[in-house]
Amino acid sequence: MSDSEEYQPPKVWEWKEENGGTWAKLNRPTAGATHDKTLPVGKHPFQLYSMGTPNGQKVTIMLEELLEVGEQGAEYDAYLIKINEGDQFSSGFVELNPNSKIPALVDHSAEKPIRVFESGSILLYLAEKFNRFIPGTLAERTETMNWLFWQMGSAPYLGGGFGHFYAYAPYKMQYPIDRFTMEVKRQLDVLDKQMANQPYVAGQEYSIADIAIWPWYGGLVLEGQYDAAEFLNVKSYSNVVRWAESIAARPAVKRGRRVNKFWGPEEEQLHERHDASDFDIANHLNITMAST
Amino acid sequence: MSDSEEYQPPKVWEWKEENGGTWAKLNRPTAGATHDKTLPVGKHPFQLYSMGTPNGQKVTIMLEELLEVGEQGAEYDAYLIKINEGDQFSSGFVELNPNSKIPALVDHSAEKPIRVFESGSILLYLAEKFNRFIPGTLAERTETMNWLFWQMGSAPYLGGGFGHFYAYAPYKMQYPIDRFTMEVKRQLDVLDKQMANQPYVAGQEYSIADIAIWPWYGGLVLEGQYDAAEFLNVKSYSNVVRWAESIAARPAVKRGRRVNKFWGPEEEQLHERHDASDFDIANHLNITMAST
Repeated sequence: MSDSEEYQPPKVWEWKEENGGTWAKLNRPTAGATHDKTLPVGKHPFQLYSMGTPNGQKVTIMLEELLEVGEQGAEYDAYLIKINEGDQFSSGFVELNPNSKIPALVDHSAEKPIRVFESGSILLYLAEKFNRFIPGTLAERTETMNWLFWQMGSAPYLGGGFGHFYAYAPYKMQYPIDRFTMEVKRQLDVLDKQMANQPYVAGQEYSIADIAIWPWYGGLVLEGQYDAAEFLNVKSYSNVVRWAESIAARPAVKRGRRVNKFWGPEEEQLHERHDASDFDIANHLNITMAST
Repeated sequence: MSDSEEYQPPKVWEWKEENGGTWAKLNRPTAGATHDKTLPVGKHPFQLYSMGTPNGQKVTIMLEELLEVGEQGAEYDAYLIKINEGDQFSSGFVELNPNSKIPALVDHSAEKPIRVFESGSILLYLAEKFNRFIPGTLAERTETMNWLFWQMGSAPYLGGGFGHFYAYAPYKMQYPIDRFTMEVKRQLDVLDKQMANQPYVAGQEYSIADIAIWPWYGGLVLEGQYDAAEFLNVKSYSNVVRWAESIAARPAVKRGRRVNKFWGPEEEQLHERHDASDFDIANHLNITMAST
């Protein structure tokens, strides 16, 4: 820590590309497009441009849940945006989301196509459009929104904080790891206490709050995201584990978590999704690879 | 950096209280109340428990904007929760917000009192209740929600990332400072490009997206939050500066930013707010100090 203690920031910060760690070459201090490229558009009402990260999974799980309950208006094409290759900086994607982050959705069933970005905004948009996975009473709806926004403000400490410094940074730094570990454990304890006496995050109903929170915190307790299961002692959050397992068993969740995923076991991948049958075909041969 | 490179995290993380920096004694790896204390309740429809941080300012600005346009149903009592003294861990506050973060609001004008926490959830709740500061068309409303959620997912990199490592951490670490500086500059550039051809973040209308974003990013470019104005070269984001200045000039914003503030020049403070006249009285003598 001795060298670090002596570090003096410059008067005016300047970008040096060599600083970084994993993903470093994708981070820039400026916004906007780096290259011209239009996005493909398929035949369904919803066009999704995404990748199967936790934020991406939120939306594909929601769309699959809507289809599961018979909302055929939720049919969608899911195109792959490889953020590791900079696809989010194309002119077409930036037009859709000036923040260059996945997921981004276009509703072509609206009078004029409507762009929706930020996973929380997309979940709320879909929940309101179909009046599904959001409670009807003001009190229950409000509690659902409280937890939806909780996820938005909390997960950056998990992904951009803990995950980065524990798993991706170029070397291990104790102070940031301690800082973000404490916060992630606190968040897990918040969820654990919240679900001590109820099945879902916002109450008795499965909602967009669960759909937002599960890919991040469920991934952490069930799948050992960041190889941190032992380090965080995730099994001690037994209510979170029980909740996460119950959600993982839902058919729509099993499908949704595979969409736009191009890593892991082949049977868990589905690079793009354009039809319900893609899930079956992909079980045997990931023919959608050709389109990516 | 040499010592840091050799740091090996333990197999299972354990809390050591001495780790920290400013605010460290307030951070814990667990949730829940640390002491029994009920919250006071005043006479107005809305009871706010908060502090004048950027997240707190969002809500008091919104309430003052509602009162400014004549929504008397938005009258409120604003009680001070000193997060630097652990007020957010009282039993009364935890019951209202299990996440122990300000701001938290109770709507006593509902059939049964409704708790609302997370600043974004509170802004949306108030906007929908009064049908104010949120556009009426689906396309414009959606764009507003996109940016409201953008703020929620982005500001943790500004406050919990950049602000912490640049201003509050016990010593200066180059890697985290570089990481979060790059992201904050990118966010400023996103906003700057977004407002190159329109007056407000989500379009032609002042909305809850502006009210959410201004306390964080306006504070950065106008007030040199974290003493980082030169370091971040904030003046180069001229569209953000223009937007921030136009919002700072609004009477409701001038009032709202003072509520639950107990630091800075005395004329900018108002420890608690229970009546519109409190702002005038406090200009001369902060008599509300006695109640905190």
